[in-house]
Amino acid sequence: MYDPSKMDRKDFMRKSSLLTLGAGALTLVPSESMAGKPIQRNEINVFGPREGYTPHIGTLVSMMDWMRMIILYPVQGMDVKDLDYLIDDGANTIGAMLWHLASTERFYQLHTFDGMDWGEWPKEEEEAWGTAMTLGDEGRAKIKGHDLDFYLEKLESVRANTLEEFKKRDDEWLFAVDEDWFWGPTNNYCKWFHVCEHESNHNGVFKFLRSRVPSAKNKKK
Amino acid sequence: MYDPSKMDRKDFMRKSSLLTLGAGALTLVPSESMAGKPIQRNEINVFGPREGYTPHIGTLVSMMDWMRMIILYPVQGMDVKDLDYLIDDGANTIGAMLWHLASTERFYQLHTFDGMDWGEWPKEEEEAWGTAMTLGDEGRAKIKGHDLDFYLEKLESVRANTLEEFKKRDDEWLFAVDEDWFWGPTNNYCKWFHVCEHESNHNGVFKFLRSRVPSAKNKKK
Repeated sequence: MYDPSKMDRKDFMRKSSLLTLGAGALTLVPSESMAGKPIQRNEINVFGPREGYTPHIGTLVSMMDWMRMIILYPVQGMDVKDLDYLIDDGANTIGAMLWHLASTERFYQLHTFDGMDWGEWPKEEEEAWGTAMTLGDEGRAKIKGHDLDFYLEKLESVRANTLEEFKKRDDEWLFAVDEDWFWGPTNNYCKWFHVCEHESNHNGVFKFLRSRVPSAKNKKK
Repeated sequence: MYDPSKMDRKDFMRKSSLLTLGAGALTLVPSESMAGKPIQRNEINVFGPREGYTPHIGTLVSMMDWMRMIILYPVQGMDVKDLDYLIDDGANTIGAMLWHLASTERFYQLHTFDGMDWGEWPKEEEEAWGTAMTLGDEGRAKIKGHDLDFYLEKLESVRANTLEEFKKRDDEWLFAVDEDWFWGPTNNYCKWFHVCEHESNHNGVFKFLRSRVPSAKNKKK
């Protein structure tokens, strides 16, 4: 929890400004198509429509931009040993989880943008993203030795594609319901909100591990 | 990650239907005030406006309902020993984290509904919610011995108040910007999205701990 009462303001401002250059964050856009007609400001902590997107897709983008900023904060400065740290035999490394987030987003792209059934991925996509999606023994065996940039590049390239595809779609698409989804009837908004909150889910583990990785232990000595 | 390819469909349907009786989830409401005019359905996985709320507040409510359903899944059936389990000296128990989620929501209510500055809480609120907000040594010392219903009651009563207060407000309020917030200018949408994703953050730890709590260890034996 980012308890603001404990937060160093300057530090948080730095963090906020860091991501202000994210998708669609550059200009002021009055939103005319929304109820309440808010004067919209494309700042990272001011959620709402974003230029280039329909109102609700833009609002989702504002959430996804913010969430990404937040989850990258605990892993800043981590080296390969930290990213490969396993707290026990059943755990996942932070590196593998970062890749897993990119994999999740990639598979949701293939599913919601390209209409593929879940799990029915082309061979090259399965090869690129499957291990990190599955994690577990295979992830522990295969995903190691990479620096932070390796994982960040995956997250960023996948996200860039999400934003491009979002620009081609509208709110009607966002609210369209998939009657056959595993969870029961589910719309694209729910699916993409899950991609977003899923980052927070793993961020909880990043924050738990942050004070337990090798570099943190060395600092304590 | 709720990888649907690994999910037992029946199990997930049960989970979905469990919370379908949540706020505003009972009737079909066509939303006339939104761009795209989706045919809105108040089902748990179909995000969008909800009856009794302005369109964007209703959409936020749909997220919060869904998120709450998801985070209660891993803690289902946990007994006091599980809820009090500390994986190491620096960790928090699942029980304390559940209370912490209710505390967070309560303090965001006082801040965004009642206009209180963060941390400037009335004494009785501080006494009721402060320890679980802070966690750490004080939380480890004081929060223990409670069953799951004890924590669920707190989560539910606080959430009921959030929903009541949301009904009295509109999208203009949701988009209103607090220029003086610790993070920099931040609107109520961002603050309440944080309350929502913060549940997912701790859910990541619930899921990490779920296979490590005493009852899980006993099952393995």
